[in-house]
This record gives sequence, structure tokens and C-alpha cells, in this order.
Amino acid sequence: MGNDRPEPVIAELSSAECYQKLASHNVGRIGVNVDQYPLIIPVNYILDHNTVVLRTAPTTVVVDADHAKVTLQVDEFDVEQQSGWSVLLKGRGRAVHFDDIDELYARTTATRLVSWAPGARDLWIRITPDGVSGRRIVPGELEWRLDSAAYL
Amino acid sequence: MGNDRPEPVIAELSSAECYQKLASHNVGRIGVNVDQYPLIIPVNYILDHNTVVLRTAPTTVVVDADHAKVTLQVDEFDVEQQSGWSVLLKGRGRAVHFDDIDELYARTTATRLVSWAPGARDLWIRITPDGVSGRRIVPGELEWRLDSAAYL
Repeated sequence: MGNDRPEPVIAELSSAECYQKLASHNVGRIGVNVDQYPLIIPVNYILDHNTVVLRTAPTTVVVDADHAKVTLQVDEFDVEQQSGWSVLLKGRGRAVHFDDIDELYARTTATRLVSWAPGARDLWIRITPDGVSGRRIVPGELEWRLDSAAYL
Repeated sequence: MGNDRPEPVIAELSSAECYQKLASHNVGRIGVNVDQYPLIIPVNYILDHNTVVLRTAPTTVVVDADHAKVTLQVDEFDVEQQSGWSVLLKGRGRAVHFDDIDELYARTTATRLVSWAPGARDLWIRITPDGVSGRRIVPGELEWRLDSAAYL
């Protein structure tokens, strides 16, 4: 009666494992507070040294992310296997100065972020991390718990 | 030179389409502000009438979500096809009163949320929506833009 399913096994990911996950993906979700709502918006991103860089359209959310506490989250899960992982990076958003964009664009596209469209007039945001955390759940029950302590 | 790729086509989802997406999935991400960081945490959830219900462990994040502006986000994307969709529900979180949990649990598990573990001592959060929005991107370039207006 409810105890016939295996318990899920949840393992914390090390900081190195978190960065490996971040480095091997390029679609995530930025968390930005707008009107006190923690908006969650899919974005293309890339790691640039130990920071996260993503491109945005020049809309008001740039203002919301600039000089603000933001997050970048990446996950994968398998509903059938009831397994998955999630990584959350917390940090400070900063608009990238226009003069730096050409160099940044050249450097990031020279590596692997070829899927980004060119467009010098777009704005970029850099997230300087304050911390990163992650966890992995292995088959058993897919039950992500809201334990903020696991996310710093 | 950069213009040889098809432009992405982005379509707004109607409110009905957003709720269809939410109703046909049961793993999403809650956005909760903790120390002003918009934390993004995977959760199992279910629609209960027009609200979202999710179960949490009794940790401090319950306090953060209770009486707070929170979000629930669900998406799917295909990196190969460079397509996908994302739905974002904004609302107010409320801890479900203990006396209501048995009835809520019976009703939700009687429908389709059989993957949730039983456990009367867990806490539940209900999100009463203030609004929902979503968008779909079809092949072309996978480029999610940070347009907060699309999520309001």
C-alpha cells in the first residue's frame, strides 16, 4: 500500500559536475524577477570561462536582469525512467557593454555556439556566479523536492 | 553571411493551449524567490481545476512560496530540430491546510497523479494563477528571446 515502489535515490552533484553539465548543454532557463514574479524563460547560453553568457533581445527584461540576482537552470529528465538531473547557478546579471560584444561574439562562436544568430544590435547578459548546485535522481520515484537548502 | 539560415517562427500560445500543455505534463519547474534569487526547482505537479498543486518536503522553501508570487514553468524542446515550446504560469503560492490534504490527495491520485509518493506529513502548495502565457518556436533557429512582455 504505497510502499511497494522503490525509494528514489537523490545525489548531490559536485561543483565540478555542475559545471560539466552546464558546459555540455546550451539551452537552459534564466530566472529573472519581473514585478516580483520569478520569471523562467528558456535561453541559449554558453559558458565563458566561469561565467554564463546569453543573448537577449533589447527588451525591458534586460533592465530587470542587469545588476540583479538571476539564475540559470538546466535539467534533463526521463519520465519513463523517472530519473533526471538539475543544475542551478545563482549569480548577478550584467549587461555586456556594447564595445565588448564583437570580441565576445568572436570568441564564443569560435568555440561551439554556432547556433546563435549574428546581430550586433542584440544585447547580451553575463551572469557572474555566486554559487552553483545540482542534484541527480536515479530510478525509483521521480520526486523533486523543494529543498532550497540543496540549492544553496 | 549569417543570413543563410531560416528565421525562426515564434507563435504565441493561447491561454487554452497553455492549459492543455500544463494538463498533459506533470513535471515542471517552480520559480520561488529565496533571498531575492529566483530559484528554479523541478517539481511534480498536477492541475486541480484551474490551480496548480505540487507537493513539497517540509523545508523552508514552503515559507518562501507561501503567500508569495511564484511561477510554474513547463517546456519541451528538440535540440536537433531547434524547436520547442514553453509555458509559464504566474500566480500566488499558498500552503494547503493540513485538513484539506486527504481530500486533495484522494482527488488528485484518483485522476492521474499516481507517481507521487504517499505521505500525509508532506506539505503541499497550491498556486492560484494570475496569468499564463506561452510560446512555440518552430524550426529555423532555436533562439529564445528574453521578451518579458511575451510572458505577461
